Amino acid sequence: MRFCVFGAGRMGAQHIANVAAHDTAVLAYVCDVDLERAKVLAERYGAKAISDPRIALDDKSVDAVIIASATNTHVDLLVESAKAGKAILCEKPIDLDLTRVDYCAELIKDCDVPIMIGFQRRFDATHMAVKQAVSDGEVGAVEVVTIISRDPSPPPASYISVSGGQFHDQMIHDFDMALWLTGATGTLELCAMGSNLVDPEIGKLGDTDTAHVMIRFESGVLCRIDCSRRAVYGYDQRVEVFGSKGMVTSANLLKTGIERFGVAGTGSRDTLLPGFMERYLPTYSTELNYFIDAVSKGLKIESDFASGRNAILLADAARKSMKDGKFVTVNLGS
Amino acid sequence: MRFCVFGAGRMGAQHIANVAAHDTAVLAYVCDVDLERAKVLAERYGAKAISDPRIALDDKSVDAVIIASATNTHVDLLVESAKAGKAILCEKPIDLDLTRVDYCAELIKDCDVPIMIGFQRRFDATHMAVKQAVSDGEVGAVEVVTIISRDPSPPPASYISVSGGQFHDQMIHDFDMALWLTGATGTLELCAMGSNLVDPEIGKLGDTDTAHVMIRFESGVLCRIDCSRRAVYGYDQRVEVFGSKGMVTSANLLKTGIERFGVAGTGSRDTLLPGFMERYLPTYSTELNYFIDAVSKGLKIESDFASGRNAILLADAARKSMKDGKFVTVNLGS
Amino acid sequence: MRFCVFGAGRMGAQHIANVAAHDTAVLAYVCDVDLERAKVLAERYGAKAISDPRIALDDKSVDAVIIASATNTHVDLLVESAKAGKAILCEKPIDLDLTRVDYCAELIKDCDVPIMIGFQRRFDATHMAVKQAVSDGEVGAVEVVTIISRDPSPPPASYISVSGGQFHDQMIHDFDMALWLTGATGTLELCAMGSNLVDPEIGKLGDTDTAHVMIRFESGVLCRIDCSRRAVYGYDQRVEVFGSKGMVTSANLLKTGIERFGVAGTGSRDTLLPGFMERYLPTYSTELNYFIDAVSKGLKIESDFASGRNAILLADAARKSMKDGKFVTVNLGS
Amino acid sequence: MRFCVFGAGRMGAQHIANVAAHDTAVLAYVCDVDLERAKVLAERYGAKAISDPRIALDDKSVDAVIIASATNTHVDLLVESAKAGKAILCEKPIDLDLTRVDYCAELIKDCDVPIMIGFQRRFDATHMAVKQAVSDGEVGAVEVVTIISRDPSPPPASYISVSGGQFHDQMIHDFDMALWLTGATGTLELCAMGSNLVDPEIGKLGDTDTAHVMIRFESGVLCRIDCSRRAVYGYDQRVEVFGSKGMVTSANLLKTGIERFGVAGTGSRDTLLPGFMERYLPTYSTELNYFIDAVSKGLKIESDFASGRNAILLADAARKSMKDGKFVTVNLGS
Repeated sequence: MRFCVFGAGRMGAQHIANVAAHDTAVLAYVCDVDLERAKVLAERYGAKAISDPRIALDDKSVDAVIIASATNTHVDLLVESAKAGKAILCEKPIDLDLTRVDYCAELIKDCDVPIMIGFQRRFDATHMAVKQAVSDGEVGAVEVVTIISRDPSPPPASYISVSGGQFHDQMIHDFDMALWLTGATGTLELCAMGSNLVDPEIGKLGDTDTAHVMIRFESGVLCRIDCSRRAVYGYDQRVEVFGSKGMVTSANLLKTGIERFGVAGTGSRDTLLPGFMERYLPTYSTELNYFIDAVSKGLKIESDFASGRNAILLADAARKSMKDGKFVTVNLGS
Repeated sequence: MRFCVFGAGRMGAQHIANVAAHDTAVLAYVCDVDLERAKVLAERYGAKAISDPRIALDDKSVDAVIIASATNTHVDLLVESAKAGKAILCEKPIDLDLTRVDYCAELIKDCDVPIMIGFQRRFDATHMAVKQAVSDGEVGAVEVVTIISRDPSPPPASYISVSGGQFHDQMIHDFDMALWLTGATGTLELCAMGSNLVDPEIGKLGDTDTAHVMIRFESGVLCRIDCSRRAVYGYDQRVEVFGSKGMVTSANLLKTGIERFGVAGTGSRDTLLPGFMERYLPTYSTELNYFIDAVSKGLKIESDFASGRNAILLADAARKSMKDGKFVTVNLGS
Repeated sequence: MRFCVFGAGRMGAQHIANVAAHDTAVLAYVCDVDLERAKVLAERYGAKAISDPRIALDDKSVDAVIIASATNTHVDLLVESAKAGKAILCEKPIDLDLTRVDYCAELIKDCDVPIMIGFQRRFDATHMAVKQAVSDGEVGAVEVVTIISRDPSPPPASYISVSGGQFHDQMIHDFDMALWLTGATGTLELCAMGSNLVDPEIGKLGDTDTAHVMIRFESGVLCRIDCSRRAVYGYDQRVEVFGSKGMVTSANLLKTGIERFGVAGTGSRDTLLPGFMERYLPTYSTELNYFIDAVSKGLKIESDFASGRNAILLADAARKSMKDGKFVTVNLGS
Repeated sequence: MRFCVFGAGRMGAQHIANVAAHDTAVLAYVCDVDLERAKVLAERYGAKAISDPRIALDDKSVDAVIIASATNTHVDLLVESAKAGKAILCEKPIDLDLTRVDYCAELIKDCDVPIMIGFQRRFDATHMAVKQAVSDGEVGAVEVVTIISRDPSPPPASYISVSGGQFHDQMIHDFDMALWLTGATGTLELCAMGSNLVDPEIGKLGDTDTAHVMIRFESGVLCRIDCSRRAVYGYDQRVEVFGSKGMVTSANLLKTGIERFGVAGTGSRDTLLPGFMERYLPTYSTELNYFIDAVSKGLKIESDFASGRNAILLADAARKSMKDGKFVTVNLGS
């Protein structure tokens, strides 16, 4: 399978390295508006550097694309790639604007190409073990799902201003996690609350840094999501699935296995992994393996366009609920 | 300090034993509508058994009363005891009906007697350590409080029908916990969701068995409460206080310290304490010590009438929020 | 069952309170060389205070005795009580001198009375759970037993000088634990090493404060014991049983369930229980229940005279091994 | 720095990949008696495949060698490489026979080349954190070091027969760990015990599969090592350093962060990493980085020839102690 990777930034570089290291994949093109940046990575792995996506899209030998460019380019690249018949692995979010997402869906509805949205947490070994345990019935009927996502420190204000806000930028992963773990369909009710407690600059931009969402799925299953932009003890990422037969949790991962015992306390473990990248770096190659496997075998892709759209639906609903101080009803697509 | 204990049921018996075992307290009367039941306990500890509260209330040698009789007798006994000038330790709730609570407050407003409502969790060693750590500034500015309360198994339908519902019967402790830990005052917003997932009989009675509440205090601090009537792994009682400098949690207590390592997993600890009584039994004597100490020294009692009323306010608001599907604003009294 | 308790010191007081609180036991006598001390406790529980043991031993209505007096009185009281036909619960050690122990055994060999040596750790809920798991085959064939016993702080030199030394005073409990958990019989090999690292005063008295023993039982099972007179993080008491199917451990018990998360580490739990008494206080009533149950039903007592002797055998062997720098072979009695 | 790697087996392949991936190192030669095996790896990374070590040793452009060939070739390659002036990273053990080790030392004593023995555990992130904490004085004066090393399953009998026995093959890492963590010098006393409990085939070959060693260093510090060839719950690798101010431990690493709560227990974590390679794979590149850094900057190498010899000294002493049933005294070289 021959790939073109769109975007040679931090995320693109990761995808590029993974494609290059894959046993059967071939990195054909690295495409970036900054051709020099593309060249650096292309040369390292023996690929062609381009700045015009059409070159790769017109190349019949290219089977698949990875869209890791700026968020506002996702929809156009998705449409063009789909029309060119390429299998697509697109970084989340599809777009920050649901109208644009639906416009995209309309344009590609007749393109029969595999599309995967990069919710990489679905490929984290611990979360996968939890999902598997739930699927295996270990917790019985699921009753409550709890997700805690706290970043070690807030992003700079410059990032906040273009991020789409805490629900769309940070909690969007948790919305996907909630939908993935519950397999929820149909209608749900949601309420959201948020505060600006961490960094006043974030508040000046009209955003929150501490936000909670409560969801009641059609099945009656309850879900709580807790996000913060700052946890001084490291990247706090926990998931708990509770049901009629017990509970499984995805516990935090630590920097090392050291434990301390002293007059101040016992069993003090190391701090958590320092951030998002340290935690989820290994997931990108697992995600790529899954994508290549699914495309080559024609399997249904779980993290699909509808999943990407649903996460945005929930982020929109959360923003509305917090703004209006009201419960919001959401109809999940499928 | 000479005591009369009203109520010789399970809870009363506990108070009676604690008074009898206390160094300076004296158990003078055991009062119960069922005189025979009162006699059994009175004789064991050398006290008088009565069925008419007036006997104790008219006895000038009685300094204090503990009200551990049926909930619907609390208000009358509170009023009569207050008018008789007795120091009062009253089991929660004051009443299930806020109108009655306010009626009670009106009647006793001129009685200058110490009144303590029995939120015994405030006297649990682990919760107290968390409260102390928060007061000591260990977590910095508090940002998020999370409380999980899951009973090992649901009560019988007969109990549910007179319990006042999940918010008033089970979650009322958590409301008090939230207010105690945050020291919140002023106005708050609250939303609640609930489901009937555990026992259909509970649903038939119009009650929930799985319920969540989300609160935003005036300070911006967020709080989440998660209650379930059934956790097969034992009495799940967790509190987490998160802030600018870190987090402290009140972790679950276990039956024993055994841990298992095998092909199925490692570090598997024992199940949690089997229930409410096993967990909170030791708190009742700590609570009594606090009461006696506060009354004899004339100290301000923290778990006071207003605390008891505030917990009911929140339970009322949660019931209304869930019923109407709306955010509810609450003005805390003090 | 009517009891006389010999010894009204700290340990005796505990036994006295437990006998008094027991449903079917009756505290008849409290006997102490210091009659005033005996009187205080006797009066509290409605018993007779005596200073002459013969009064109780000659009283046919007394069924059982608890020997909790000074160690050097144990043998005489054991012999006299056995000859008087009383059931006996004797605090460990039987004596510090094996010759005296064997002399005692010889004198009582024809007395058909139940004798139990108070190895109270066998009645600790966590250790019992471990023993049960091992008996249930959870770890398969036992291969390795590890015991760690570290006191929070060393006793004063005045105590060290009459204690019999670290093997006889501190590690004797661990020797019994090892024998109990393995059910070992026959011949074993042992080596011991020790150091004076904690308190120079202990070294001046010729004793160690840090000592290890390694045992190879006849079955090939290996055992390691690690004792220290000082662990600043609390009373460190761990047991680990490892075998062909896994491992069970008796983990430490903590003061409270608080856990801390900050820049210095995560999951930091409270310090361990502060000492021996806090950890093992609840075992004394379990031990008493077992004794009363076994005596009244005529059951075999596991923690018997031979157990008491075997623990001393191992302590003697350890002392010899360390002194001579040699492996020592021990033939266990039964 | 240009490298030749001797040995293209499992361990050699790991070193080859790490050299190839290193920023400044160049893989010049892959040398193996099986030239075809060498060719496969050499071609992958653009190096030359050779079967005659002399080609690389005579090549003046080669700066360093990694000796990862069969143990019985280590001494000859060490000598030849040292005489050729190459910096040497040699897999442990130097040799199974101390006479050969000393013969080697004699031959290379005038060769002024950097020599590092590959005790890769010293480069494990968790062990390094423990070592750092000890160096930082977190535990105060070290009093007790405990090391537990249990493999998930025993090697085949064919391997056992050439392994040198459990002390030389498995526990040699633990001996180095003990010396590294304590920084011990001078004289020590040691006793060892072992059993054949896991696999009768191992016993038939005269080897143990369950072995313990107890050490008393000149400083009085005590050390215990516990090895088993089988732990069904995974690769059990723990280190505990206890001292006057507390304790730090190197806890086990787990497959994932999943935790389970059910009727059988709570907080059950995943099984441990499945084996040696999963645990220590990341250490080889850290080790290589250290080697390259030390050689290029002329720094003292801690894991040096003397370290390699000392570990063998202890293994020899342990074998002798177990065989003779005697304490053995060892004089550490430096």
